[in-house]
Amino acid sequence: MKMPISEAFDLAVEVLRGGGLSRQGAEVVAAHLVDAHCTGHTFAGLPRIPTLLEGIGELTGGVLEDPEVIRETATTAWVDGKGSLGYIACQKAIELGIAKGRDQPVVIVGACNAYYSGRLGYYAEQAARAGHVVIHTNSSSAAVAAPGGTRPVLGTNPFCISFPTNQGELTVDFSTAAITEGAVRLAAATGEELPPGAAIDGLGRETSDPQAALAGAILPWGGHKGFALSMAVAALGVLAGGAALPNEAANHGYIFVLVRADTFLAPGEFQDRLDLLIDYLRDGAASVRIPGEQSSKRRDRARSEGFVEVPDEVLGELRALRDAQV
Amino acid sequence: MKMPISEAFDLAVEVLRGGGLSRQGAEVVAAHLVDAHCTGHTFAGLPRIPTLLEGIGELTGGVLEDPEVIRETATTAWVDGKGSLGYIACQKAIELGIAKGRDQPVVIVGACNAYYSGRLGYYAEQAARAGHVVIHTNSSSAAVAAPGGTRPVLGTNPFCISFPTNQGELTVDFSTAAITEGAVRLAAATGEELPPGAAIDGLGRETSDPQAALAGAILPWGGHKGFALSMAVAALGVLAGGAALPNEAANHGYIFVLVRADTFLAPGEFQDRLDLLIDYLRDGAASVRIPGEQSSKRRDRARSEGFVEVPDEVLGELRALRDAQV
Repeated sequence: MKMPISEAFDLAVEVLRGGGLSRQGAEVVAAHLVDAHCTGHTFAGLPRIPTLLEGIGELTGGVLEDPEVIRETATTAWVDGKGSLGYIACQKAIELGIAKGRDQPVVIVGACNAYYSGRLGYYAEQAARAGHVVIHTNSSSAAVAAPGGTRPVLGTNPFCISFPTNQGELTVDFSTAAITEGAVRLAAATGEELPPGAAIDGLGRETSDPQAALAGAILPWGGHKGFALSMAVAALGVLAGGAALPNEAANHGYIFVLVRADTFLAPGEFQDRLDLLIDYLRDGAASVRIPGEQSSKRRDRARSEGFVEVPDEVLGELRALRDAQV
Repeated sequence: MKMPISEAFDLAVEVLRGGGLSRQGAEVVAAHLVDAHCTGHTFAGLPRIPTLLEGIGELTGGVLEDPEVIRETATTAWVDGKGSLGYIACQKAIELGIAKGRDQPVVIVGACNAYYSGRLGYYAEQAARAGHVVIHTNSSSAAVAAPGGTRPVLGTNPFCISFPTNQGELTVDFSTAAITEGAVRLAAATGEELPPGAAIDGLGRETSDPQAALAGAILPWGGHKGFALSMAVAALGVLAGGAALPNEAANHGYIFVLVRADTFLAPGEFQDRLDLLIDYLRDGAASVRIPGEQSSKRRDRARSEGFVEVPDEVLGELRALRDAQV
């Protein structure tokens, strides 16, 4: 059903608080989920809550701590997620990055000891709106095999880069896996087939059967090059203090590099020039997708209408969770 | 023939000087070409010289200037290539980055107004050897169509990231195009077919005919995601002051971000942990390629033997060029 955004936010906060989050923590996560929902990334929105609550139970035993800044300098900050949610650690990280970036052309923030941070674009775009070019990566636990391999060795390791323009943010945000874990689980639940080249079974044979894929692994996107990029995301996770081996679900490593858009060019010049490039690309092919543009338009529409569409069964599940917690 | 590395270097310097480069400039370029040759990237090695000389003639009218540092701070530097060779501008850029990185955990250097810089890994690895994690990108002039497009709108826009390990550098260095321009030209010359999905003809139809591809465009690697990454490399080129529209062959934009490997972890800890990850990946699949490893082994062997293999026809061409210049 269509529900007011503020009501969706309040419901999310309530259910997350019941799961052990502080009011502040629950608000950070709920804001992220509602934003994902508004941009049309529904599965990264409110439907994520039950999975998050399960993860909190399994990975932290329900003990949730606030992230802590271990060390900082004028151009760096290091955030320890204390084994809790990546959403909260990454929100802290990007806010530190933006604050430091007021005085510094280039800043790096690392975060570790946290799991699952949602959409990378959510953090990167906050910094892009503050005038930064942002590179953001997230190493995660093993789900993807090497080309020719038979078992998962790397995470779905997403890579994101966002740029300010005069028309909103240009945000490239993609998984280095051919398909997300969520999509495999969804296909398993609905009985649909996986696209070709997306997964292998437990013997390393390509498969379109999601059940077989759950016993095997996802394949990297784009063959050897994609796997190499995934390796780079994993190594950046190590730089941030995340798990060296991709077998610790609660120790993702997150990197945020922020560069002021006016580091070299005059203020506003980067945005003007990037607008020229985007218009040029649009002229080059009717089918060209400007990354992040659709999400941004969906968000604007949802915000101006004040409503978000939440599937009835999700709403029912969340209300049941809330009522069970009371 | 097998020739002493020093002799190959001297020959390259001589021919490049004859093409208008200063002694210092010629030595910078020759060192790069000989290194590429030693790592087995033969086409980025000595055989590149005739094409470079043609480019110098066409793009600069033979007037070559030394790159200039337009502006610098403790954590940034901006290099103007003065319309000359990217090799020289990028070598200056990485040396500035490394010098600044002695005192700073994170540094950004931009370079623009230059064309063709050779292998990105060459620059990134110098900084990795000095203990930095390095992200290096290079926007270039149009050769690649958008998926579904009919004409080139973006460059082959390579992306590189290099990490120090205890066993050498882990270097991810790839073109965001399905195939290089050089490979299309080589196939056209030898009459070979292009691999499927690599190029389109002038009407936007996929083709394996290199002649048809020269009238059309190369396709991006990895579909929409690869094209999005290419767009990001183009936007980073704009950040560095490169051409906004990818139609200026002599105004590539280059970005170098250097992060000290001990920014968050203790000195040496990043390298130790990355070694663990690499060993783990190697165990995960017999076929896993550790990016940069083969090149590095080839370089070590060539350097220890003191010889490099230069095809006879290339040697003949270079000697003829040298003799014609005298």
